[in-house]
Amino acid sequence: MLDIFYYPNGVAVLGATAKPRGGFFLFRNTIEGYKGKVYPINPGYDEILGVTCYPDIASIPENFDLLLYFIPAKHLPETIHECAKKGVKGIIIESAGFSEVGAEGKALQDESVRIARDYGIRLWGPNCMGLLDGHSRHVFSFMYQDDWKELMKPGGVSLIVQSGMLSAGFLMAVLERGGMGLSKVASIGNKCDVDETELLEYYVQDSNTTVIAAYLESIKDGRRFLEIARNTSKPIIVLKAGRSAQGAKAAMSHTASLSGSSEIYKGAFRQAGIVQVYDIHELMDIARGFSKTPRCTPNGGTAILTFSGGAGIVTTDLLNDFNLTLAELSPKTLAEIKEVFPEWMDPSHPVDLWPAAEKNGVAKVYTHSIEAVMKDPSVDSVIVETLASPRTGLDYLKTIAGLKHKYEKPVALWMLGIGGKGVQDEARKIAEDNGLPEFTEISRCVSFIRGVRAHFAKKKALGLISHHLHP
Amino acid sequence: MLDIFYYPNGVAVLGATAKPRGGFFLFRNTIEGYKGKVYPINPGYDEILGVTCYPDIASIPENFDLLLYFIPAKHLPETIHECAKKGVKGIIIESAGFSEVGAEGKALQDESVRIARDYGIRLWGPNCMGLLDGHSRHVFSFMYQDDWKELMKPGGVSLIVQSGMLSAGFLMAVLERGGMGLSKVASIGNKCDVDETELLEYYVQDSNTTVIAAYLESIKDGRRFLEIARNTSKPIIVLKAGRSAQGAKAAMSHTASLSGSSEIYKGAFRQAGIVQVYDIHELMDIARGFSKTPRCTPNGGTAILTFSGGAGIVTTDLLNDFNLTLAELSPKTLAEIKEVFPEWMDPSHPVDLWPAAEKNGVAKVYTHSIEAVMKDPSVDSVIVETLASPRTGLDYLKTIAGLKHKYEKPVALWMLGIGGKGVQDEARKIAEDNGLPEFTEISRCVSFIRGVRAHFAKKKALGLISHHLHP
Repeated sequence: MLDIFYYPNGVAVLGATAKPRGGFFLFRNTIEGYKGKVYPINPGYDEILGVTCYPDIASIPENFDLLLYFIPAKHLPETIHECAKKGVKGIIIESAGFSEVGAEGKALQDESVRIARDYGIRLWGPNCMGLLDGHSRHVFSFMYQDDWKELMKPGGVSLIVQSGMLSAGFLMAVLERGGMGLSKVASIGNKCDVDETELLEYYVQDSNTTVIAAYLESIKDGRRFLEIARNTSKPIIVLKAGRSAQGAKAAMSHTASLSGSSEIYKGAFRQAGIVQVYDIHELMDIARGFSKTPRCTPNGGTAILTFSGGAGIVTTDLLNDFNLTLAELSPKTLAEIKEVFPEWMDPSHPVDLWPAAEKNGVAKVYTHSIEAVMKDPSVDSVIVETLASPRTGLDYLKTIAGLKHKYEKPVALWMLGIGGKGVQDEARKIAEDNGLPEFTEISRCVSFIRGVRAHFAKKKALGLISHHLHP
Repeated sequence: MLDIFYYPNGVAVLGATAKPRGGFFLFRNTIEGYKGKVYPINPGYDEILGVTCYPDIASIPENFDLLLYFIPAKHLPETIHECAKKGVKGIIIESAGFSEVGAEGKALQDESVRIARDYGIRLWGPNCMGLLDGHSRHVFSFMYQDDWKELMKPGGVSLIVQSGMLSAGFLMAVLERGGMGLSKVASIGNKCDVDETELLEYYVQDSNTTVIAAYLESIKDGRRFLEIARNTSKPIIVLKAGRSAQGAKAAMSHTASLSGSSEIYKGAFRQAGIVQVYDIHELMDIARGFSKTPRCTPNGGTAILTFSGGAGIVTTDLLNDFNLTLAELSPKTLAEIKEVFPEWMDPSHPVDLWPAAEKNGVAKVYTHSIEAVMKDPSVDSVIVETLASPRTGLDYLKTIAGLKHKYEKPVALWMLGIGGKGVQDEARKIAEDNGLPEFTEISRCVSFIRGVRAHFAKKKALGLISHHLHP
């Protein structure tokens, strides 16, 4: 149903311009990735970037599916009438000036919805940044950054974002960090017609999408949203803003959203197997982690392997704070790890690998010890803490990634980069490219493991995952 | 008292070597910054890096204050006897193999303490990374990284770290991030003699130290530690590891530390005005923030200025989670902000500045609005959220820093870097160099503001701060 937005047959850009502002970026982004017909509309130009420009919708010689709306709000009703004559099926309204600015804007928005509904035209937005698709590379958004072209990689993460700047600014920040492939991104703004629930359903059915992450200020049809979430095996991570009374008030003025009670959401999310998060980078961190974690059988505890006894203790405390269990490593596992340890030291858990690494090298000690804990049936997940340093080499991170895939046990990686500015970025890239999610904070590693275990336990209990571990 | 460790008159390095391992780095670091006499000791060399090498302690022609010990543990008792003949006042034992490896090591350590005490020689460590001083540039540590020379800036933050790898690896990671000047760093390991309480007292009296941060697995003399903390106006931030039963067990095997009950620590820390933190980057983030925040009069609420309505709502929710108050901006303040807003939009709180910034430019809108909230007596702290982008320029961050200093109200900065890989680093550097602490997570901005308000409120209640705001 939402295919007409993501894969339209012909796109017109109302408000395209050659001046370096929103209407230009919207048009340029559109022609960059979309290979069908594109019609810029602006009476002031004959062409923009070499593409024939039309003075109005009526002048476009063919019918087309999608209109991108980027002119002042007040023209929307008449535009919908014009669109109807051209067989338009959907309009993405990226302009602001609707329900978020008060009663008058609200009336304008409501009127537009009525008119569109009569014609069977779907509306997206208003007050939003549009959409993009990492696989088709369709980008129908006015975000001005140009480097999405190099940075955007196709992948499994699809996003629903009910906030303009967050969707664009944040998306660019996420792309620049790297490590996460994208399927579909939707900035839904005031969501006068297309909303989070319809998108959730669409993403659940989308074969490119493996993980769904959403920033939401309100959920219109909570019952349906939760039902869809409950019935899919895909992980869904939600940052629900407006949890506090004052936050809800701010959400009201931001996208005219009525937030529900925080406690009700919390319980309902858990029931539906939704992973709830509370901060902005956290949303992306957890989504990125899930995108690299297709399997988990939560039937044991978490192993901690570290370069620092201190970091291991902090991690153990945080496991406890998050109601997770430190795995009970078997004597066999400890004996196997002992093989790479110095004579004077016996491994305990959390496993401080540094004295061993000094003797036998980081690569050998880490990969040997990680394989030992992966084989231990009491371990269902692993937190690996290491130094990113040119001295130790970085290739062993690939071996760790391989072990993670072989044993199908989630890994969260925490690193301190030392020995030069670029080394942490380089190590992170090697890790992420090979399927190891890396997190800046130890607490994020722990909350990721908690989210993964909760998701797979819930989906297994609901009979949505039949996966069995093959050791 | 601890001056003999930080400012010794003559230093010998037992276990110095020309091979690229610990004993070499320890020696090289020592001669790099320390301008007094240095005596490498190793029977295998006549000189190391051009400095005359001695076969043993007895051969050193003069008396000296400090010995850096970096040979196997078992030689420590005889070494102390040798040291006594040379007038040595302190020994920093950086080797491992003492109480942390079991009963035998514990006996060796205890015996060494007894012998040293008889001679009046102070012991530091063992099982530690030694110390450094950002002002004198004395670095008596075997950390192998060479780039501390460029990265280490003098400043107000002093650290106590009860963990070897954390102190070295972590310190390097902190130095590479930048933004924090250092006074004294102490890695105390098994703390057989010099301990966290004595160091705390020393730092409290140290005129270069304005902020004290500690990673501790145990506190030997809790009563005295808390008394010192309570009676200083300097902020003290503590990451107490081993809070959980399993974490405490791990701490026992790591530095042979007996941890106390988590709940007792929590209450006692609060009573003493200690800011408690729970993660490793958090310890440094909060210390860095305090080092740029000499003043705060917690008599109002927190203002939020943002480029994204969504981020503002998330921040408001997190304020609520952390028991902070969103400031009630006065009509006068809102009217003043309105001056830079577009006609169709009235500012509300949190203040979403983006529509205004699009109209009047980021620099003007941010600085004007921040000054307006700073002048509002209901505001005692400000969270500023902005884009780090070459398009908006970055110099306005300096103006924001100036406003912060002028009005003496703490600021926490959160940025999304877009428009190229280096821009976030560049913006961060400008902000930090001018006294604006920047944090990667919104939740960290909020926990920083909470820590600052709690610290200043407590110290004012205890009569340790007489500061009044001069508007």
